Amino acid sequence: MLKYQQIAAEMEKYIEEHELQQGDKLPVLEALMTQFEVSKSTITKSLDLLEKKGVIYQVRGSGIFVRRHKRKGYISLLSNQGFKKDLENFTLTSKVIELDVRKPTEEVAYNLNIELEDDVYYVKRVRFVNGQTLCLEESYFNKSIVTYLNREIVSESIFSYIMEGLGLKIGFSDLFLNAGILNEDEAKCLGLPNGSPKLYGESIFHLTNGQPFDFSKITYNYENSQFFIQANSHFI
Amino acid sequence: MLKYQQIAAEMEKYIEEHELQQGDKLPVLEALMTQFEVSKSTITKSLDLLEKKGVIYQVRGSGIFVRRHKRKGYISLLSNQGFKKDLENFTLTSKVIELDVRKPTEEVAYNLNIELEDDVYYVKRVRFVNGQTLCLEESYFNKSIVTYLNREIVSESIFSYIMEGLGLKIGFSDLFLNAGILNEDEAKCLGLPNGSPKLYGESIFHLTNGQPFDFSKITYNYENSQFFIQANSHFI
Repeated sequence: MLKYQQIAAEMEKYIEEHELQQGDKLPVLEALMTQFEVSKSTITKSLDLLEKKGVIYQVRGSGIFVRRHKRKGYISLLSNQGFKKDLENFTLTSKVIELDVRKPTEEVAYNLNIELEDDVYYVKRVRFVNGQTLCLEESYFNKSIVTYLNREIVSESIFSYIMEGLGLKIGFSDLFLNAGILNEDEAKCLGLPNGSPKLYGESIFHLTNGQPFDFSKITYNYENSQFFIQANSHFI
Repeated sequence: MLKYQQIAAEMEKYIEEHELQQGDKLPVLEALMTQFEVSKSTITKSLDLLEKKGVIYQVRGSGIFVRRHKRKGYISLLSNQGFKKDLENFTLTSKVIELDVRKPTEEVAYNLNIELEDDVYYVKRVRFVNGQTLCLEESYFNKSIVTYLNREIVSESIFSYIMEGLGLKIGFSDLFLNAGILNEDEAKCLGLPNGSPKLYGESIFHLTNGQPFDFSKITYNYENSQFFIQANSHFI
């Protein structure tokens, strides 16, 4: 973690611990520079990061303000850290249904930007939050990047392993979402009646160098999953 | 539009028109500076904006690359411009069901950060894409900010009117999402069988000064709505 990221993390923690509310004003730039003993450019980078993450908003000529807290138990659709961060007060577990090495389908090869004769790790697991089903996840990892997986790894956080175990740097992601109706297998895995609604997502995660390494299809239990997105004014 | 935004828009248009693919390399910084006849700091700002919007990714020491195209017909969950931009090749229409001035419920007052005795504009409309129902939208506008609405305005893009007609600057937004089951009124408005799945969203839009002005509840026709989100590595 770079200095500006550390400071951003400290400020975020402070806001959370002191339960600051939307509109609460933070100290001015100069005060923050003194407090953290860093240059203006470092503090500016920290604040930009917090703004991108939806923690604060900056009003020109007026100051730096807190954004409303996330709703508890909602999963961020912008986080690349997996569920762990959003659901940190909940117990997350996984049941591994399948784990093997296989050849990709055309769809998987396209999304991972690999050839049909390349190898992928296939992982199918059900994830639980406080013992209740959260989602059914089918993931395909480019084996030339994610070179090794076993049952122990995939029953924990695969992303922690990829970052810490394999030392890979996770970059940007694409997520596609729609609602639909559970099929029989999905309903069985999630413990819901056949024909229940579902929230269905496909995501592609890339390394910082742009290579896609993970294509996942996720079917959520609609009763146990809620999501949030905090967008900022850059998207205008 | 500022200079760096203009350049970003031009570059995005170029990428779209030339159908550049994910991984296609763009000219180096110096070449872009020469081409657009601007300073390094302006080009850097343009590139940062395009990165935030998910149009490009930058790899340190390696270059600037195109990100994969959005899937056609998918609605961005990060855009604050309403559907118009994502669905520009589709015909969007609205049917206004209700428009009145009323007192907010507690929920609405909380989300708009106003008092129970303040006034809100309430707008209920069904939106159509190519003649098919896209969503049922119930919106509450803080009347002290959005001072005037009529049937003609709300049957078009309310956001265009807010920006161009009222001259307000739209800032950040919060969006909460989940899947569920349509109730009778929703099913009727969307022309779907009772009990069909739905994607349900609540959004709060703020001005750049942090004031919330629009709280909306949107129920999507799951058959006609698909969404995408492009996240970048800042969220790691």
